[in-house]
Amino acid sequence: MLREQGWSLGDWGRAAVLVGLVASAATPAAWAAKRDFEMNIEDTRITLVEKQQFHTFAFAGQVPGPLFYVDEGDDVEVKVNNLTALPHTIHWHGMLQRGTWQMDGVPDVTQEAIKPGDSFTYSFKAGPSGTHWYHCHVNVNEHVALRGMWGPFIVRPKKPTALEKTVTQDHILMLSDWDSKWANKPGFGGLPGDKFDYFTINGRAFPDTEPIRIKEGDVVRLRLIGAGDLVHAIHLHGHAFKIAFKDGFPLANPIMADTVLIGPGERYDLIFEADNPGRWMIHDHVDTHTMNGDRPHGGLMTVVEYEEIKRNDTWYPWNKRSPKPNFYYQDSLKKGPGVYTNDSFKGQAIQ
Amino acid sequence: MLREQGWSLGDWGRAAVLVGLVASAATPAAWAAKRDFEMNIEDTRITLVEKQQFHTFAFAGQVPGPLFYVDEGDDVEVKVNNLTALPHTIHWHGMLQRGTWQMDGVPDVTQEAIKPGDSFTYSFKAGPSGTHWYHCHVNVNEHVALRGMWGPFIVRPKKPTALEKTVTQDHILMLSDWDSKWANKPGFGGLPGDKFDYFTINGRAFPDTEPIRIKEGDVVRLRLIGAGDLVHAIHLHGHAFKIAFKDGFPLANPIMADTVLIGPGERYDLIFEADNPGRWMIHDHVDTHTMNGDRPHGGLMTVVEYEEIKRNDTWYPWNKRSPKPNFYYQDSLKKGPGVYTNDSFKGQAIQ
Amino acid sequence: MLREQGWSLGDWGRAAVLVGLVASAATPAAWAAKRDFEMNIEDTRITLVEKQQFHTFAFAGQVPGPLFYVDEGDDVEVKVNNLTALPHTIHWHGMLQRGTWQMDGVPDVTQEAIKPGDSFTYSFKAGPSGTHWYHCHVNVNEHVALRGMWGPFIVRPKKPTALEKTVTQDHILMLSDWDSKWANKPGFGGLPGDKFDYFTINGRAFPDTEPIRIKEGDVVRLRLIGAGDLVHAIHLHGHAFKIAFKDGFPLANPIMADTVLIGPGERYDLIFEADNPGRWMIHDHVDTHTMNGDRPHGGLMTVVEYEEIKRNDTWYPWNKRSPKPNFYYQDSLKKGPGVYTNDSFKGQAIQ
Repeated sequence: MLREQGWSLGDWGRAAVLVGLVASAATPAAWAAKRDFEMNIEDTRITLVEKQQFHTFAFAGQVPGPLFYVDEGDDVEVKVNNLTALPHTIHWHGMLQRGTWQMDGVPDVTQEAIKPGDSFTYSFKAGPSGTHWYHCHVNVNEHVALRGMWGPFIVRPKKPTALEKTVTQDHILMLSDWDSKWANKPGFGGLPGDKFDYFTINGRAFPDTEPIRIKEGDVVRLRLIGAGDLVHAIHLHGHAFKIAFKDGFPLANPIMADTVLIGPGERYDLIFEADNPGRWMIHDHVDTHTMNGDRPHGGLMTVVEYEEIKRNDTWYPWNKRSPKPNFYYQDSLKKGPGVYTNDSFKGQAIQ
Repeated sequence: MLREQGWSLGDWGRAAVLVGLVASAATPAAWAAKRDFEMNIEDTRITLVEKQQFHTFAFAGQVPGPLFYVDEGDDVEVKVNNLTALPHTIHWHGMLQRGTWQMDGVPDVTQEAIKPGDSFTYSFKAGPSGTHWYHCHVNVNEHVALRGMWGPFIVRPKKPTALEKTVTQDHILMLSDWDSKWANKPGFGGLPGDKFDYFTINGRAFPDTEPIRIKEGDVVRLRLIGAGDLVHAIHLHGHAFKIAFKDGFPLANPIMADTVLIGPGERYDLIFEADNPGRWMIHDHVDTHTMNGDRPHGGLMTVVEYEEIKRNDTWYPWNKRSPKPNFYYQDSLKKGPGVYTNDSFKGQAIQ
Repeated sequence: MLREQGWSLGDWGRAAVLVGLVASAATPAAWAAKRDFEMNIEDTRITLVEKQQFHTFAFAGQVPGPLFYVDEGDDVEVKVNNLTALPHTIHWHGMLQRGTWQMDGVPDVTQEAIKPGDSFTYSFKAGPSGTHWYHCHVNVNEHVALRGMWGPFIVRPKKPTALEKTVTQDHILMLSDWDSKWANKPGFGGLPGDKFDYFTINGRAFPDTEPIRIKEGDVVRLRLIGAGDLVHAIHLHGHAFKIAFKDGFPLANPIMADTVLIGPGERYDLIFEADNPGRWMIHDHVDTHTMNGDRPHGGLMTVVEYEEIKRNDTWYPWNKRSPKPNFYYQDSLKKGPGVYTNDSFKGQAIQ
């Protein structure tokens, strides 16, 4: 459940801008939109790949949760309703919470956890700019590592870098890990020594991930977010990329690479030019993370497809596939600030 | 046991400077203090958290071992007495040992290991500057990974960087991992596939870690040292930091971040401005490293507390706690060069 | 089996240059050698250390496979014959495959896998320059992680950096991990949760690795390649190094360090001055990676030996050892472009 605040979700951002804008002709930098939102935490069954399901405590019933795409300096207000049987909070990972430490979402340190049936309203100013995320901070070993309690939080900069201004395709990839033995045991799991056996991008494992569709001439930004328990080594074929941002901050000297190591909590924004039409893998180079349980050629893996290249090879498993829309929130990011839910990530409610 | 060399430990450094200084008016860069020290390696029981104890081979009976804080170019001499039943050495990780490779502390490569009951004197010139450490190099899989055989070794630079000159609060955080099944089996453990289930900062796990106390206006340096077997993703709330030093060396362009991945043997010095009063977590973002055994909300985690913020929330677990002194060696680092033992890290002698 | 193309292997490169060179006086940058090669994939038993053997699917019957050392822009053609009972491909990790995406070696995405008994010819232009590698892309969890299907691919730059021009000793170190329970079960293994218990440099574990022999005044380049499933923290004693290249690309500001974290698929080129004669360890600082099964003081570890230092200490295990030639492909790299097999890496054919 995601209560719409009197405007359609896709238009939420623009509506909020109209409603909440505080304008000042003299100091345009002080302009700030007011953006409010309400979302539930719900027991939700999602499907990682094929028949492998997982019991999650999903934000707005989806994994990843809704995209928050706001402007630097915006006033953000989020009412959270806990409909599950366990306590939760939300930590806005990357937000500095200047002057609002009680909004940082850490149980027993900045607030008491939100009890089952209770609500809590987070209110803070968005900043700094860049690729951030939000996640529960209660029993992170289970709630973050295994129960899908995370979503992307992107802050549009007031002063974008020259490099990011060139971007034509913007994609979000949240990386995570799962241990199937806890799939149906909410409230349990996430122990030291757990054996993670499923590995996903935006909650799905290959071959049920989606292609990243681009065309020659694009400048592509991949926003990697380490949302799980493990370290991943993300390798892109056919291109070198610039490691352009770390945790939202631009690197003074972007690093050229074809593989980037990303740990839990880290974000790396990779930017590359689409100058080499083809069908190119992007995947975790940790070999055992390309498994679905004990079956190989799965896991944290997908294909960058150029529009110029036909998909009709008989042996290409995706030759007859219609990609799910907005799987990397690429369509939402094109629309501008707003809060976006996503049917591609919706699970089944568990009563 | 730590034999004091005729002066009090806290004054060791200054005394040594008086005793050992070789002055040259013409070439001040050639000044070098002579610093000598003697320490035992002792069977010692430490407490990681709550009732979880561990049998260690502790330097001077404490984990971490004594802080060596010396000036670049100082002549260091350390006599080591092995009072345990197993062979050991000390490797001074980060010291270049120019011209003194036999002092590098690698068994069967640079020396024979120090047998039980024997002694060995290490003698070398301190350099380069920065955050370094020392540890045993015999059976590192057990002695370093599980038996607490490590301590900090900080070399004060002759020419500090502009950034480090601004630092007002200097803290050392040694990160390590433990497998409780070997807690009482000295001489065993540290096998491939071991299941690490306790995770500590300076030998203690949350909630038995200590707050990092700062105040608005401070410039804070956190010297992270990867002393254990695992990779950690250290995340600070409420602030971005500069990754300013790697393995003691200043980065040409410090990297802004809120999370840093640190592996075994690595050191990262993080520097941030204390401009956001609050109660802020700093913790490993590897979710399963915030466990104490199978109990969540523990492990590699602590709180950065601003003095401006009261600690009296009834739900704050540290609301009535008196922090242990010098838990991050912050008081010792303020005093200037010396060798510092630390009662906060003392264990119980095992006969 | 490695079919020689009418010239001796060591001379392959030069011969190919003579045969395949396309010269243009007006545009020397357009010069490109044609380099072709044929190699088998063969069931091969290699020895990791002491008596621990492993069933591999070895390129040309060796692990690592033959060194490809080519010039930037060269036309490379490799015919691969699959003599094993399982399907394979070759991915040329780091090669951009501009205009040749069907040569990228990914089963079911860029080609159908090469069936047992079948052949496939890869043909592409070498680039960009730097330290790259090749490996099978079928069931990487087993074939790459456990079956030794990898080798080095070095592209000499047209415009070397000032730093790399100073190099006098060039060594390749491929890092990998093994789980002995799958040693004799080809077609099985590489599952999530596998317990890697052997750790090697160029397929060998200490004490059966080889010394890196240098002399004072050398400028040494170590080309690290993460070829296995795990993250390693490579620590060099007695020297700081510059992390000069990442995935083949020069860093704008090389990073000084004594320990570098390297994940699967990544490459780091470390460059240091040999200014400190001695016997210096270089090893993985992940403590449990210095094991051979359950025996300590093994694994991913070797010694940098200066020629100036005698090897005759009675307690030095390598005091009477004759190093195997070309173990780091250092002799081949001195000879210039070519394709080089290596008897030091040859295993036993399995019928």
